[in-house]
Amino acid sequence: MDDDLGALPPKEDFSGWYNELLWRAEIMDVRYPVKGLYVWYPFGFALRRNVYGELRALLDVDHAETLFPLLIPETELAKEGEHIKGFEDEVYWVTHGGLSPLEVKLALRPTSECAIYPMYHLWVRSHADLPLRVYQIVNTFRYETKHTRPLIRLREITSFKEAHTVHATWEDAEAQVHAALALYRQFYATLCVPVIVSKRPDWDKFPGADYTIAVDTIMPDGRTLQIGTVHHLGDHFSKTFAITYEDVDGEQQFAQQTCYGISERCIAALISMHGDEKGLVLPPAVAPVQVVIVPITIGKRKEEVLVAARVIEEELAAAGLRVKVDRRDLRPGAKYYYWEMRGVPLRLEVGPRDLDAGQVTAVTRLGDKSTVPRASLTFGVADLLARFTGTLTRRGEEHLLSHARVVDTVEELSVAIEKGVAIVPWCGERACADFIEESVNASVLGTEVQAGFSCAGGSACIACGKPGTGALVGRSY
Amino acid sequence: MDDDLGALPPKEDFSGWYNELLWRAEIMDVRYPVKGLYVWYPFGFALRRNVYGELRALLDVDHAETLFPLLIPETELAKEGEHIKGFEDEVYWVTHGGLSPLEVKLALRPTSECAIYPMYHLWVRSHADLPLRVYQIVNTFRYETKHTRPLIRLREITSFKEAHTVHATWEDAEAQVHAALALYRQFYATLCVPVIVSKRPDWDKFPGADYTIAVDTIMPDGRTLQIGTVHHLGDHFSKTFAITYEDVDGEQQFAQQTCYGISERCIAALISMHGDEKGLVLPPAVAPVQVVIVPITIGKRKEEVLVAARVIEEELAAAGLRVKVDRRDLRPGAKYYYWEMRGVPLRLEVGPRDLDAGQVTAVTRLGDKSTVPRASLTFGVADLLARFTGTLTRRGEEHLLSHARVVDTVEELSVAIEKGVAIVPWCGERACADFIEESVNASVLGTEVQAGFSCAGGSACIACGKPGTGALVGRSY
Repeated sequence: MDDDLGALPPKEDFSGWYNELLWRAEIMDVRYPVKGLYVWYPFGFALRRNVYGELRALLDVDHAETLFPLLIPETELAKEGEHIKGFEDEVYWVTHGGLSPLEVKLALRPTSECAIYPMYHLWVRSHADLPLRVYQIVNTFRYETKHTRPLIRLREITSFKEAHTVHATWEDAEAQVHAALALYRQFYATLCVPVIVSKRPDWDKFPGADYTIAVDTIMPDGRTLQIGTVHHLGDHFSKTFAITYEDVDGEQQFAQQTCYGISERCIAALISMHGDEKGLVLPPAVAPVQVVIVPITIGKRKEEVLVAARVIEEELAAAGLRVKVDRRDLRPGAKYYYWEMRGVPLRLEVGPRDLDAGQVTAVTRLGDKSTVPRASLTFGVADLLARFTGTLTRRGEEHLLSHARVVDTVEELSVAIEKGVAIVPWCGERACADFIEESVNASVLGTEVQAGFSCAGGSACIACGKPGTGALVGRSY
Repeated sequence: MDDDLGALPPKEDFSGWYNELLWRAEIMDVRYPVKGLYVWYPFGFALRRNVYGELRALLDVDHAETLFPLLIPETELAKEGEHIKGFEDEVYWVTHGGLSPLEVKLALRPTSECAIYPMYHLWVRSHADLPLRVYQIVNTFRYETKHTRPLIRLREITSFKEAHTVHATWEDAEAQVHAALALYRQFYATLCVPVIVSKRPDWDKFPGADYTIAVDTIMPDGRTLQIGTVHHLGDHFSKTFAITYEDVDGEQQFAQQTCYGISERCIAALISMHGDEKGLVLPPAVAPVQVVIVPITIGKRKEEVLVAARVIEEELAAAGLRVKVDRRDLRPGAKYYYWEMRGVPLRLEVGPRDLDAGQVTAVTRLGDKSTVPRASLTFGVADLLARFTGTLTRRGEEHLLSHARVVDTVEELSVAIEKGVAIVPWCGERACADFIEESVNASVLGTEVQAGFSCAGGSACIACGKPGTGALVGRSY
């Protein structure tokens, strides 16, 4: 990687900035010879490991991790009518093994309901087996015909975390929907990514679900990115796959189910939300390197400085921090540039003057400079990292607030939508949604909107004037 | 899972024992509706996580983890002639996206040389980029027409760890071959699985390699299982994919490469090596539960015992152990049976008498009973686990020794091969290998054999009488 390429394109040119950043910060290599398939660079993969480690830790509290096959026989995929209709245009089909045609075509999983639920049919017997909460982190596939984009719209989603739960009653499953949303909120809080939660319109729900609740964020250009979904499946799939249990009275009942997923879009979101023209800005919780130490080795005290840097590295590593001394034979400025591009939250500079003063110079990735007493360095670094996390969270919330408006006329909506999202009163009728969508070239994304700002909205549907409630409208990726 | 099914089939009936164990210990569910594809139960997946965690820790010292796409265009796969010949009969082909035929067929990776090396062509520029050491843990696919078997012969290998390295010289690559073998030895030592290392005959090397060194173990029935391979690729692939670097003199040179892999067979090996008729026997390093505490709650001191059990659990967990109190309303015998099936290395029994005596009763998975003073419990448990690891290692080595013979006549070989493997003198000629293989219905697996026992062998080839060196002969899975 050549590191003397100057600044990134301005973030206002989001696509240009994003593509250049993924490459220069060594997140993804887009040069793989198939459209929509990308390669994780080691640095990008280290970030992915940390992000998914956080997600696993949250899930492991009451979910079990497992792994189901990639290949789904056409016969199973076709069982749930709505589901297959929702996916048939974008499924990759394996038709041959070696030179022989297969008897039954095999789909590369677009999602795993039809791989998992035939097994749930065997696993679930009694109310004592419920709730069942299982997840897996796998590669899934969509034959995307739209414009593909790394981490956002892919043909191989390399990092799909999907959870599939089974419950005795519809209400138990609904409680799981809320639990999953709480978990997702906690996950995105760790990434300092603000979210808007809303219930997708009926026509936009997951194929085969009772309803879908989505988690969106707002990208730098104001468009929304769906970064998580939670589906109440009711008994659609349990009736299809005969997932039944014996209740306390000895009666057979159809189970109620949910599923919910997050893909590597979570990484696209955190990169896009925090990054700037110098490169990535990573939340300490997931940064592959949390602290970089740059020894300032001018003059004859080089050895002394290098020893001091190593001792600091050991001290911080012992405290559980991911820390690295940059010992390369480069001038400090080149090192700053390199680590800023890679989003390291905190840089420590250690030079002769710092040694004499019994201190270390600390500079956050956002440029805040301070000195930390050497004697309480571990505490000082932990404190700076915690503050840095707080700053990213606050900046994220400000970004969300400044890109969302509560409006009640089409004119206001038109203005708001150029900048981000809007909450508008809507009566719930499809025809009115169509009117709204056509008027402003945006989508009605959801109702029952939960965000960090008030979304009461007016009460007269923006299209027909009948009573309405707040709907989220935006242009989405 | 119904736990009152009595003992497993005898281990002499290896297939019966193995299949029943995978099911009863909840490792794999074989009922997925496609041949050769299996489902990881949560308990099996927890074991997998720990095993691959150990492997990652060893690799992370000087390899970077990354991730390449699953789908390889036919045009790339076909570039290296020998390589494609070696795999063309067993590649799964994706031919359709949705309802449209693809312009270029896509292979599900059988292994990733042809996905990774087009990128190495871009990544490697200068001698300063070398050595490059990258690995990934991915699902790979083989359209197996032979009898499939969970963890051993699969159509979806769910857990293939493959490393791919690039070096300046053939000698550097050879040094990496040795480093990889040392790493694999260390990994299998952690699993207490004894190995035999040998150089595969030329006709059995990896398609496109200069040579292949394999790691085998001996299964309970005496057959060998290949559980790792290391390939010196020379410049076969670097010439095909134009992976060149500028040397110190400014000249372009073809790079030298290696690759090496381990699949979920490592889990098959550890299960098969250590398990017995009561179930799994797991090495503490990878056991999902290392210590189970069974409260003996007879009579009126139930609360006191449960509190004591919880305090012990917290104490051991704080020391970093994976520990669990079994609080279920079952008699102790049923709990013993349950955890023995799942291979938990150490069981602690805590009852009123133990409390009074200031001790805990400890029983290893192999039935060794002792008492540990309550005051030094953490130390005592760590000591018992370390001894347990030592016992498994010793038993593994004894198993290997008792199933291997150094012989120098075909008659002795016939006898030895019924029990396990043999080392025989062989001149290196294919015709003599064919003679040996036909005489005893076994394979010449390798030369330059490294195992825990002497393998000098006689010096006259067992087939032709010309000078020979020791070759490993066995029947393999």
